[in-house]
Formats: sequence, structure tokens, C-alpha cells
Amino acid sequence: MQQFMDLDFLLSTETAKWLYHEVAERLPIIDYHCHIHPQDIAEDRQFDNISQVWLGGDHYKWRYLRTNGAEEELVTGDASDREKFRAFAAVMPKLIGNPMYHWSHLELQRVFGITQPLTPDDADEIYDRCNEILKGYSARRLMEKFNVKAICTTDDPIDDLHWHEQIAADTTFSIKVLPTFRPDQAVNIEKDGFAGYIKKLSKVVGRELTSAEDVVAALYERMDYFDTKGCLCADHGLDYCMYAKPDSRAANEAFAMAMKGNRPSKDLADAYKTLVTIACAQKYTGKNWVMQIHFGCLRNNNKAKFAVLGPDTGFDAVNAQSGVENLAPLLNALEERGGLPKTIVYSLSPGDNTAIVSIIGCFQGGGISGKIQQGSGWWFNDNRSGMRAQMTDLAANGVLGCFVGMLTDSRSFLSYPRHEYFRRVLCELIGEWVESGQYPNDEKQLKKLVADLCYNNTNEFFRFGIPISKGKS
Amino acid sequence: MQQFMDLDFLLSTETAKWLYHEVAERLPIIDYHCHIHPQDIAEDRQFDNISQVWLGGDHYKWRYLRTNGAEEELVTGDASDREKFRAFAAVMPKLIGNPMYHWSHLELQRVFGITQPLTPDDADEIYDRCNEILKGYSARRLMEKFNVKAICTTDDPIDDLHWHEQIAADTTFSIKVLPTFRPDQAVNIEKDGFAGYIKKLSKVVGRELTSAEDVVAALYERMDYFDTKGCLCADHGLDYCMYAKPDSRAANEAFAMAMKGNRPSKDLADAYKTLVTIACAQKYTGKNWVMQIHFGCLRNNNKAKFAVLGPDTGFDAVNAQSGVENLAPLLNALEERGGLPKTIVYSLSPGDNTAIVSIIGCFQGGGISGKIQQGSGWWFNDNRSGMRAQMTDLAANGVLGCFVGMLTDSRSFLSYPRHEYFRRVLCELIGEWVESGQYPNDEKQLKKLVADLCYNNTNEFFRFGIPISKGKS
Amino acid sequence: MQQFMDLDFLLSTETAKWLYHEVAERLPIIDYHCHIHPQDIAEDRQFDNISQVWLGGDHYKWRYLRTNGAEEELVTGDASDREKFRAFAAVMPKLIGNPMYHWSHLELQRVFGITQPLTPDDADEIYDRCNEILKGYSARRLMEKFNVKAICTTDDPIDDLHWHEQIAADTTFSIKVLPTFRPDQAVNIEKDGFAGYIKKLSKVVGRELTSAEDVVAALYERMDYFDTKGCLCADHGLDYCMYAKPDSRAANEAFAMAMKGNRPSKDLADAYKTLVTIACAQKYTGKNWVMQIHFGCLRNNNKAKFAVLGPDTGFDAVNAQSGVENLAPLLNALEERGGLPKTIVYSLSPGDNTAIVSIIGCFQGGGISGKIQQGSGWWFNDNRSGMRAQMTDLAANGVLGCFVGMLTDSRSFLSYPRHEYFRRVLCELIGEWVESGQYPNDEKQLKKLVADLCYNNTNEFFRFGIPISKGKS
Repeated sequence: MQQFMDLDFLLSTETAKWLYHEVAERLPIIDYHCHIHPQDIAEDRQFDNISQVWLGGDHYKWRYLRTNGAEEELVTGDASDREKFRAFAAVMPKLIGNPMYHWSHLELQRVFGITQPLTPDDADEIYDRCNEILKGYSARRLMEKFNVKAICTTDDPIDDLHWHEQIAADTTFSIKVLPTFRPDQAVNIEKDGFAGYIKKLSKVVGRELTSAEDVVAALYERMDYFDTKGCLCADHGLDYCMYAKPDSRAANEAFAMAMKGNRPSKDLADAYKTLVTIACAQKYTGKNWVMQIHFGCLRNNNKAKFAVLGPDTGFDAVNAQSGVENLAPLLNALEERGGLPKTIVYSLSPGDNTAIVSIIGCFQGGGISGKIQQGSGWWFNDNRSGMRAQMTDLAANGVLGCFVGMLTDSRSFLSYPRHEYFRRVLCELIGEWVESGQYPNDEKQLKKLVADLCYNNTNEFFRFGIPISKGKS
Repeated sequence: MQQFMDLDFLLSTETAKWLYHEVAERLPIIDYHCHIHPQDIAEDRQFDNISQVWLGGDHYKWRYLRTNGAEEELVTGDASDREKFRAFAAVMPKLIGNPMYHWSHLELQRVFGITQPLTPDDADEIYDRCNEILKGYSARRLMEKFNVKAICTTDDPIDDLHWHEQIAADTTFSIKVLPTFRPDQAVNIEKDGFAGYIKKLSKVVGRELTSAEDVVAALYERMDYFDTKGCLCADHGLDYCMYAKPDSRAANEAFAMAMKGNRPSKDLADAYKTLVTIACAQKYTGKNWVMQIHFGCLRNNNKAKFAVLGPDTGFDAVNAQSGVENLAPLLNALEERGGLPKTIVYSLSPGDNTAIVSIIGCFQGGGISGKIQQGSGWWFNDNRSGMRAQMTDLAANGVLGCFVGMLTDSRSFLSYPRHEYFRRVLCELIGEWVESGQYPNDEKQLKKLVADLCYNNTNEFFRFGIPISKGKS
Repeated sequence: MQQFMDLDFLLSTETAKWLYHEVAERLPIIDYHCHIHPQDIAEDRQFDNISQVWLGGDHYKWRYLRTNGAEEELVTGDASDREKFRAFAAVMPKLIGNPMYHWSHLELQRVFGITQPLTPDDADEIYDRCNEILKGYSARRLMEKFNVKAICTTDDPIDDLHWHEQIAADTTFSIKVLPTFRPDQAVNIEKDGFAGYIKKLSKVVGRELTSAEDVVAALYERMDYFDTKGCLCADHGLDYCMYAKPDSRAANEAFAMAMKGNRPSKDLADAYKTLVTIACAQKYTGKNWVMQIHFGCLRNNNKAKFAVLGPDTGFDAVNAQSGVENLAPLLNALEERGGLPKTIVYSLSPGDNTAIVSIIGCFQGGGISGKIQQGSGWWFNDNRSGMRAQMTDLAANGVLGCFVGMLTDSRSFLSYPRHEYFRRVLCELIGEWVESGQYPNDEKQLKKLVADLCYNNTNEFFRFGIPISKGKS
């Protein structure tokens, strides 16, 4: 029996152990998609206690607290941080098979040196030990601890990026903190608040926006600004993947309705969203940015809770009607207009895996390695079985060796062990293939493969330009 | 090599063996959802032969007979019981990988002491031995043999529950046999026979029912009656999960059409079904009943066979358009109206697993542990890979430790080994997690986890109130 | 550690090794569905070099070349065959987990005696060795090498089948090469070129076709012709599985529009396609042919590439809207009209597996073993995990022992090792079941099961009439 989460956690073969410890473990981290607030890095934030980091904004954990019968006071309410920690410790033993269980223990092990399982019995002791050790850390110290070389935050087009500027100007801190251009509020015309957002965007660019084409021009201007701050990629978040035949008239009809506070029909809204998405992609192509597309999400399903707590509080779910069937015509529309940038596609619906891999295979080419990617298991798929499924499916119908691999998608400075988790799962999978004779036991080739999938492919695909040698400690 | 279906069947690790034999195997059974006819218990039915029990009403087995080329005479026709048994024995060796193969052999082992595989060569000998042993059994003796403590049957609102009454009044029999309120015929307005059913319901409550609201009032009255007979839960069976904005006018338009024998449009039918479902849920909440929702079923697909054989004869299938995307707005509508009871959701479409787990996660809370549940692998998913998938997915995005676990959904008194099967699969899965270091090897915690998932959670969630100690033999 | 792709490749248990080497390996091959051009057999084609066979028409490989960043010149362009081979060798080490990796090495091992992995370093040496050895082979020699007993090609109704005639007349060649009736161009009315095709069909039957019924009559005539050439089966390729209530008026409205070059609405097109499909099935039933139905494919997604390269060049994908929900009413319509032939159903969408198995279970019977089949993992599912999923799902809800098993679906004479691959995966799976006690270790029964699934079931289901004894070498 393997010990609980020991050094060989998830490494079920000798090949897996060797690959992880000799290669994957030593590689630095590029976290190309996260939700870290750059202010925390600029000001090098410190944390009062582990509840603040763990439970302050982590809606994954909130769901499990609620499922375990915790009252909202212990979740997002006024209970003390110690009480909230105890409530979380009470769920932990029931989280068997959950990635949160592993992430939490990896964080306890790597940052706090705590190797025992978190249980209600030990909750107070562990809480106190963690808080003591946290005093020695800050946002930047945590990033350095995990050998992070670069991250991409998620930023609205109207953001002035002054925190990014300030971080870049600080010569005492060498980790790259780059913005990501995320124009969702200008794209998702069917959402509440669209008209208000367009007015803000209008103010930022200093002119009125009276058409879809005006919105595009404003976004182009902001892309140019983001470019000056080192931006390398964009991200589009869609409830479902839409496609409508490009039709400026319909798009502008939708725009006019939405600006008057009316909700356009699905067809009109799709026309607007498709038009703006295509236009953005054309500009990204010109800039050689990577475009990320996330779809298949039902948000804010619990209206009563949304009214009280707002978005991103644990009430989102998989949209089984993800619109994956529109992905092919959407990518084709980009291709036909000479505006298909390097792209990473994510669906929240795990049943879309094979469809996505087969669709992106239709748009590869142009001399770019892995031009169109399927992203690593996203959100509800970011767990061992989800990652194994994604990589097995990608390998079966695509070229796994071109894959850009892992990202945290996290709001927390403690989440970098998710890269460790991914790397262990990857080495486990490769180890199984090698030891069962499905792939040659060729040391040099295996090392290259693992280094590519954990670091090099991301570094080159996004153009971070950070040689591995800089990452060796 | 492990011996065929020996004592350690499916228990692939030492931890699995220990957990199963020390904990799971000794626990009593609460079968909270089955289709046993209470008359058989009230009258303590005996069986003439094994074909009667096995092949008399089991449409799972009928499908395999037909697939193997048996003529209908040997399936539902006039062939002798011995001939039917032979026909089934002829399929058995081809059923490799099928849960029916394992269920049948567990039943042969546990009740009849027969450990050899059933093959055409041994069919007659096994048939005779089984029939001899069957003489010593009856409905009640079989339930006692399997250490059953309580079952919930499936009952129509118009049922007078006199069999349940009779069983409860019999002081010589201590197993609880409780009714389940299943109002499908009053809900599924698009089905043939709706108007006729409403007339029957009208007669039972002693007044004419002229609106959707009248139907609801009648159902409420019947719920109160079921309550007096110990009912703890309801069950709603839907071809697809529907949702329509609550609209009494549309619901009543549908009702009026259906009562005239016309089929309402899908939109109108959905309005009616949503209205009645929400109303039922409100009353269940008040009663603290558990609501079960089953969806994703295409029924009676073979019209020619349906015309001859009627429903539940082996012609149902997975509805790929299960309507899972409506589950979030439906649960939200219940929540918003203060009428979201403890709920168990089942889809027949295995691709819905992740969506369901993510959706129910949006409606947890209120201080109830595991308030909204995903049900155990239903029907076409009630097999080793289906159960492993359901529990792995639930564990990855929910709290497995809160799961209420297994039910037979069966019409047969021989089906209780399905609980054994589930428990073995559960212990196998937990054993894998523990022995690979993914969960601590903590004896006390593991025992609690297995006891909760096999018995305690069900006992508490439904409020059966049967302490485990009573179950120990 | 197992050696790379050695004799026990994929055979993870002793039972698997024994079953494969004692039974599966020795069985001949019937490839009941392929895209071999019969002219190549009639003229006993030889190949100049391995690139011609491997890269000349294999759009699977083209996708991986493009994904790896190869320019189109190296894919379908004017680069030399040696350069193309090098480009493919450069992708190979990145194809970990891909069936192409295994197929290619099986082909290198079995035909060319090359056991080392193909890498860029060895590309030139391997290229030269292969080409030398290829001189000793031809289309017929390759088929004989793999112990092929019969194949079914894929043929248009207007084909005069003279190559099949010529092959059949050649007494020096004993492998059966039978045509398959594939009326897609007469069915898929929504596709470009429909009207032109109907004119060609009209010419072949020597009369004008002015209605859907005329088309059916023409197809019937061609079926009779195919019958005289030994045809045993038909194949219908559909982007999605459609069903519309039989309606001759709507079908003919669609036909009239399409013949005028207009695209009928989806509803009208479905009416036409359903009518013709039902009519075909009735005639197949009369002839005791096997009907194959393939659905769930999005074709020619990259319009720019399609314009240059045409169809079947690597731009097809899974259609997530496969229409599997129409399969039940479609099969029912066939059954009700007394025209449900033996049928094999394939969907490109792996999420359809459980739905398909449950649907076909509703239409079994009539004394035919495995009358309605789910086909082996098709195209994007034709890999180890796809085949395991298909067989596990089929076994769980159907009768695996009745399954007709593998086909190559290939254009290449080197593809027969795909049968070897399938047989290894099958033996691996059965070995796991047996060695974990899920199925009896009964030598005789296991041998029968494997022989049935690898050969006998296909031989009997299609009526090839080739006894195994002829296949023993």
C-alpha cells in the first residue's frame, strides 16, 4: 500500500516516478490563465490566516460546505475565520475522490510542511500552525516558492492595467505578470448590464459607440493598449458556442435593442456575438496572440442566492447544450476571413471531448505546431479522471506531443500545486503507456515529451520567451 | 487468477476485502425504491419455480433472450417454464460483461447455494435444484434472508394502500413496507390515457377535477392519505426533464385539451407538467418527504410489440434528449417558491452525469446534508462501469460521503444481491483510492464512510429511523 | 516492463495471451466494410514506395502532419515521397497514445519485419528498407499475407461492378471481393450534386426519374444487379440520423425542389431521406442483406481546404447533434412496415453508445441472433479506449457474445493489422474479466467466444459461408 499522498503520489509505475522526479518536478511554472488580482502582487499582499486564502473567495469549497449541511453563515457569512476553517475540516473526510481533497493536502504539504490529513480532530492545531507559517509568506514569496516564471491574469478591456505597469516597473521582482484581454462584457449582448458596460467602454475610448462596428473599433484600440503592456493572449467566455452567418445588419439590430435595454432574440444576439468574435480574432491573428474560447457554462442558476451573493459564488454548472456543433462553422468563418489565430478551445461539458478534438483537427496547419488546441480539463473536469479523459481523447485523435498543457484558472496564490497535480497525472499516464509496451522506453524522447507538455510548448506557443535554464534552481 | 465470483468477487485490494467483509457485508438493507407488489408480501407469496421469479416479469432478461434469437414463445409466450429456463441458460455464456450475468449468479449462490456457472449443459439440473429449494422460501422469507429492514414500493396516488395497511397490521412481520407516491399519470399529460386517469382520480377524491389546480388539490389530498400510511418519499418519472415558466393559463389550456382527448403542444404540456411538479414539490417540502425525479427515457419504442405486449416488456431505451438542461431552471423554480424538498435526480443518459452533479451543487444548503442527490446508476447504468462512473463523477464534483447510495428498482424478491453488488463496487473503488495513497488508510474513518454510504445516509435522509444495531445478526 | 509492441502487445494477463495466441491470432480475416478500390485487386497493383501506401490517400495521417506544423506541400502537395515520409516520421514520437502510432508499427513489423520505433533519425533507413521489401508485394499478396478470406468494398449503385466481375472470374485468386450497395448520393438530397447524380442514375436504368418513388424503383433495380455480383450488404452514410413520418407528398416536394437545384428545408429533406431509406430497407429485408447505418458526421468543415482538396482530405469531424434520438422511430418505422433487415448501427459520437445499445435492444427478435448490432468503434472511436468503451457498453446492456466485431473501414492494403489490434483489445478485455473472477475460466467456452467475436459471427451474420477450417494455415 502506498502511503497517503507521499512523494510518489499518483505515480503508479517506475517510469512515472522517474519522469516526474527527474523532469516534471524540476520545471518552472508558466500559468497562462488565472484570476489572480494583480494588485495583490503589486502590493505584495500578506494574509492574516489560512481561511482568508482558502475560504475567502473559493466557491469550489463553498459548494462542499453547503452540501455538507453548513449554514450560509459558515460559508459566506459572518462566522469567524476559525469557525469557517472548522466547517471545512468537517467536510474533508467526506471528499474522498475529490480533487479539492488533494489540492488542499498538496498545499498543506508544500507550503506549510503539514503531511497529516486534515480532519475535524486536528482542525484547530492545523489552523494555528498554518497561520504561523503564513506570516513568512506574501503573494510574491508564494509565487517564488513554486518557481513560477510567468502568469497571465484576466482583464477587462477597459482596465488601465496600472497594477501590471507597476509590477513590470519593479526591478526587484522578476516574475512576468501579463494581462489577458477578455472582452466578454462587450460580446455577451444578452447579459444584464451590457448597455452600461458599452457606455463605460465608450468613455475609455473617448467617443460614442453606436454600432457593432464601433464596439469592434473600440476593442481594437484597447487591444493595442494591452499589447503595449505585454499581453500575449485573449479569452472569450461564452455560455454556449454560437455561430450565425456574418450579418452586420442583424448584429446592429441586436446592438440597438440591447442599448435600449431590451433583450435581443437568440438569433440576433448570435449575429452580434459572432460578428464581434470574428473581428476580434482577426486582430489577434495580426498580433500573433493566442485566443482562448471557453464555452458550455450555465451561470448563476440559483436566482435567490445570486440576488444575495452575486456571481462566482458557487452556483454555476455544466451547460449540456454547449453549442459544440457550432465550433466547426465558427472556426471556419475565422479561417475564411484570414483571421484564425492560434486558438485554445475549452468546453465545460466532458462529452464534447471527442467532438472538439475532431473539429480542431480540421483547422490545423499553416506551419504552426498545434495551432488549434483543446485546453486542459476545465473547472468541473479539472480532476484526475477529467484530465486523464481529456489527454486520452486528445492523444487518440490528435497529437498529444503538441499540447500546451496546464493552467490553474485560480484566484489563489496557493493553487500552483495544481500544476504538480497535472504533471503527476501526465507522468502516470505516460508511465502506463511505456510500461505496457505501448510507447518505447526511450529515455531521451520521454524526457523531451514531458518537458514539452509541462513547459516548453506553452512557452513557445504563447511566445513567453523564457528559456528553461532560467527556471532551474 | 481469482476464482469465478468467489467471496472476494470485485474486491481487488486488501482494503476492499476488509471493508466489504468487516463493514458492508454485515449491514442490513434499506431498499428505498423498488417495484415489488405489496400483495405478494401481504399474502407471503410462494413461487412454483425459478422461471416464475426470474423470467415471469423481468424485461431485462427478455431483451437478452430476443437478442440471442429466441422466438417470442420462449420469452413471453406459451412455452413451458422449463423451456424458458433453458432458453435463458443458452444466453448466459454470451452475457460476459453484463450485470445480469453477475446478478443471476449471486442469486444462485446466496439463495440456492449453487456456485457453478449456469450453462445450457447444466440448465435442467440447476432448474430442478432451484425449484426444490424454492419450496422453503416465500416473499417474506426471502426479504429476511437478505436482512432487509425496509422497502419503499411504487404506488399510484389513487391506490388505497390496503396491502400496505395489512402488512403493517401484521405483528408477525417486522420489515417496513412503505408506499411511495408516484403521480406520473396525473403529471404526464401528453400520454394516452391521461383523461381516463383524471376521471379515476376524480372518483377517488369524490369531486370533479376541472383544472390543473383541481388536480393539484386532489394530489395533495392523496399525499395526506399516503402520509398516514408511513410514506416518506415521492417519485416522478419523466421522459425528459421539462421546464416552462409557471403559467397557470397555459397549464389549464393543456388540461382542457387533454380532457377532450386532444394532445396539447409540447409547450402547453410542459406548462402543465411544470405547474403540477412544482406544486407537488411544495407539499413534499412541507412533509419533509424526499422527491425522486427520473428522466431521460424513451418508452415503448417498438410499436408493434407494444400493441401486443403492453408497457414494461423490454422496449424502452435511453432518451439522448433527456432535457438535463432544464434541471437547473426547474430546481430554481422550486427553490424560489420555497418548495425545494430533499431531492434525488436520476437521468437514464450517462452523459448527463457531470451536468447533474454540477447542477445539484447549485441548490445545496439549508443545513441539510446532501440535500440534493444524484441517484445511483439507474437501469442501463446499473452495472459495474456505470456505478463506477457515477460515483467517480459524483466524488470529483460533489461530496461522495453524503451520497445515499443503492436501491434495486426491481420487481423481484431475488434482487437484493444488487445491494451486495453495489457494496462490492463501492469497496473496490475506495480500496483503489486508499491503496494508491489518494485517501488515508484510517480504519475508523473508512468504516464510517462505508457504513454511511451503504446504510446510514439512506436511513437518515429518508427518516426511516432504523438503528444499525437492529440490523446486526 | 513490457517491451515495446512485442508479441504480447496489449495482452495484459495470461488469459489474454493464451486467448490471443491460441485462438484469435490464427483466425482468418473477413473485412466486411472497407474502401479498397477493386481495380487495385483486379490489376494486382504494386506500390513504388511506402509513402504511396501510407501517405497517398490516408487523411488520418494528413491531419497529424498538419497538426505538427507541416506545410501542405508535405501533406498533399508536390514534395517528394521521401520528404513526405520524413515529415511523417517527425510526427511519430509525438503520437503517443494514438492508434496510428500502433497501426503504423504493426504494419512495419508484420509486413516489413521492422521492429524498431520509427523516428526522424531512422526515417531514411526505414524508408529504403520498406521500399525494397514492397517490391515483393502486391495488392493480392498483401491480402494473402494477412489471411484475408473475404472483403466487402463500398460501391455506388450506378457502378457496373466490372472490377468485381473480373476478380470473381479469375480462378487464380480465391479471396472473395464483394460489392456493398451504398446509395448515399441518391438519399442525401440536401447535398450539392444531388440532381446531377439522379441524372446519372436515370441514365443507368434507362428512364427518367421524376419522383421519390422513381428513385426507389431505380435503386431496387440496381440492388438486383448488385445481388447478381454477390452483394451481401448495404451501407447508408448520414450526417445525422433523421426520421420524419412517412409522407410521400413531402418527399416528392423535396425531390422536385432539389431537381431544380434548390435546397429543400430540413423537414422536407428528412421526409425524402426517410422514405427512400425505409424503401431500401424493405428490399434488403427481402434479400436478407445486412444494412449498415453510419451517422453523426460533420463533413468538409474547412471550406477553404475543401475548395482546393475536395472531400476525404482530413476535414471531417464528429457531429455532436448525431440525431441518435431518431434512431428508435426510424427502426420502428422499418419494423412496422415489415422491412427491418439485419442492421448494424454506427454513430461517430461516442456519447451515443449507451443510447444505441438500449435502442437496438428494442428491435431484436425474429429468431435471428444479434439481429440489430452496434458496430465496432468507428473512425474517431477506432482506438483502444474507444473499442474498450464500445465493447464494455455493449456487454453491459446487450449480448456481447452476439457481436459481429471488426472491420477496417480502410483504403489501404496495409490496414489488416487493425483486425489484430481489435483482437488484442478484445482478448485483453476478456482476460481482465476472467482473471478477476467476473467470468468463468472455462477453456472451451472462452475459445468459442473469441472465435465467434473475431470470425464466426461475421461469417454467419452476413452469410459469407466460409468455414474456419479453410482459414487455418
